[in-house]
Parts: sequence; structure tokens; C-alpha cells
Amino acid sequence: MNDKGLLLVVSGPSGCGKDTIISKVLDRIGDEGFLSVSMTTRPMRGDEQNGVHYYFVTEDEFRRNVEADRMLEYAQYGKNYYGTPVGPIETLLQQGKTVILNIEVTGGKNVRRLMPEAVEVFLAPPSLQVLEQRLKGRGTETDEAVAHRLSIAKEELMHACDYDYIVINDVLEDAVEDLLAIIRASKLIKDRTIHKICEVINYAES
Amino acid sequence: MNDKGLLLVVSGPSGCGKDTIISKVLDRIGDEGFLSVSMTTRPMRGDEQNGVHYYFVTEDEFRRNVEADRMLEYAQYGKNYYGTPVGPIETLLQQGKTVILNIEVTGGKNVRRLMPEAVEVFLAPPSLQVLEQRLKGRGTETDEAVAHRLSIAKEELMHACDYDYIVINDVLEDAVEDLLAIIRASKLIKDRTIHKICEVINYAES
Repeated sequence: MNDKGLLLVVSGPSGCGKDTIISKVLDRIGDEGFLSVSMTTRPMRGDEQNGVHYYFVTEDEFRRNVEADRMLEYAQYGKNYYGTPVGPIETLLQQGKTVILNIEVTGGKNVRRLMPEAVEVFLAPPSLQVLEQRLKGRGTETDEAVAHRLSIAKEELMHACDYDYIVINDVLEDAVEDLLAIIRASKLIKDRTIHKICEVINYAES
Repeated sequence: MNDKGLLLVVSGPSGCGKDTIISKVLDRIGDEGFLSVSMTTRPMRGDEQNGVHYYFVTEDEFRRNVEADRMLEYAQYGKNYYGTPVGPIETLLQQGKTVILNIEVTGGKNVRRLMPEAVEVFLAPPSLQVLEQRLKGRGTETDEAVAHRLSIAKEELMHACDYDYIVINDVLEDAVEDLLAIIRASKLIKDRTIHKICEVINYAES
């Protein structure tokens, strides 16, 4: 029997290093780990693949997921919808996989409601000054846009207390090790492992 | 300001590999980690050092600790008392250290009462057959003594559900990594790290 998998939610302000850290964590855990794939109604582009870059669906199918309360989060940008469907995550969890969900801070609440067994990590910058430098370092945004992101980041930091773990991304490699430790430890929590004790005892009696 | 330290309780049946695993974990975490030192009323022997091998105290002092509810566990062997005093553990925790407490399964309950913030790990063998082989492999005990230890082990396994984490010691190095991950992750739990978020926010406002 496979152990049930682990859903790891990673949130944090824009510029805190989420994407880089998640990518390095996935490299380290190999076949065991999957990044949750979003669903969208926008058309497939270039060499995009269904189920890899997105699940490409019709607006009807997207709506059916929303109406059935099977979306962890969703939003509309322009005339297209984007969201995170529960179904594919459940399938991977049943296979014992570790699924990482990179989600907006505001989306965390709905994950807790629909998938309370998820382990939620809030990723934070060591300071707002460092966050500002990182955002400016991208060189892709105006000063006004950076200031706007910083004010959103400050709001988002207030939600850190809703998460199970808080990781400060000061040194990138440390933050990666932190996430790996959280994944490993989460799989050892009593509720997930007590069945192994039953096996130890029962096997002896059979 | 130091972060508050971590008290890691490790219990499990005799022969499950507790001592070896704890010793390897302490090697890996270096200056950060300490093994809890017991208190005893027996006389100091040979090159034993007070505070290293035991805290050597008078029976009066031992009793004062018991009466003040400052002992996590204690027992009498022959005419001598042995126990685990709370005081030295609290001092190390205030210094931000990780204190590992190697304790009998029956002692865990009292630790939970006196130090509810402790993280408790139950260490189990992969099977009772393996445990039997390990106990016999020591070559120090009669078949009768081994059978007695096995029946105690079976009782003790029933208490695994009272612990926060369960680690199966199948491959020694994996169990060591498991404990290290539990220590690292436990320090990242929201309640222990939320003050860092306050620092990130407040520093920006000062």
C-alpha cells in the first residue's frame, strides 16, 4: 500500500523567491514531487502541452469545476479563466506523491477549507528592504510598480500567522533545505505513520 | 535575541536503536545540540564528571526537585534515585539550544504535562522480528530476557499514538535524517517563527 501523498502549499509575497526555491526543491525530490498544474480556458500556444503547462479546457468545463466546488482558487484575466483544480492533485496524492502548490497568499484560505490536510508554508523575505532590492533588481518594473508590490507584500505578511510553517528566504540554499525538512518531517507526523505501528504489531500476531 | 530552543523527546522500545541514532544526530548538529543529563543520588565513580555524566546530588536535593514537581521522570534502583530535572533543560532552551531527551516510553506522558512545547518522537523497529534479532545480536541476554523485552516492546508500541512523530528505524542513516528533518522543521513552525515576520514589518516602519 502506498502511503498517502503530501500536499505542500507555498505562498509568499511577490519577489520572495518562491519559484526559484520550489524549482530547486523539485529537483532534489525527483520522481516523488510534482508541481500542481493550473487549469485555463485560454488557447494552447506554441509547444505547450496539455497537463504539463496547463490543463486546457473549455469555459463550460472550467465552470463545472467552479460550480462543483472543485477549484482551490481561480481568477479571470481578460476573457480567460485560470485556476487550480482539486482533481489532479487528489490523483497524485493517492499515488503517494508530494504535490507542491505555488499559490497566492489570498488563495491559502480556500485550500485550508477544501484540503485541510495540506501543509502550508509561508515564504518571507528577510526584510522589506531586501524585497525592494530584489524587485528592483529584476529591472522589469517601474518604481511605482515596485512601491505597489511592496505595499501588497506588507499586507500579505500579515497572513503569515495563518500558515503552518514560516520560512525566511535569507540564504537561498538554507530556504531550500528548510522546505525539504518540512516535507520529510510532515510525512513522519503521527497521523500519517501510525498505521506502520499497527503493521509492526499485527504482523507479529499473524 | 536568541530564538527559544527545542526540546526533542526520543522514546522507543529497548533495542530500537535510540542511543545510536541520538548520538549520530548530536554529531551532526554540533554545538547546537545537547543530550539531557540525568540527576542521581549515587556516588560519582572513576573519571565521571558532575553535569556531564550525571548531576550528582544528595538525596535531600533530589527529593526537593521531586516535591517541587521539577522532575520529568524519576525512579529508584536499589537505594539510589535517578531522574531528569527540568531546570538544566530550561536553561539550555533559553540559550536557544536543541536538547535531546532519551526517555522511557512511560516517561513521555509526564514530559507532555510539564513541558507541553516539547516535540516527541517515537522510534520503532521495522518489525518485532527485527527487534528480536537485534536484541539477540547483542549476545548479552538470555532467551527469557529477550522474550520479556519483546513483550514490553509490544506494550510500548501501543503508546506510539501519544507522540508527535513516528520514525521507523529500518535503515539507520534514514532514521538519522528523519530526526534531523524533524528538528529543522520544528524550528520553523509558525508559533516559533511568527516574531520574525513582526521584525520584517516593524523594521520597515521604524
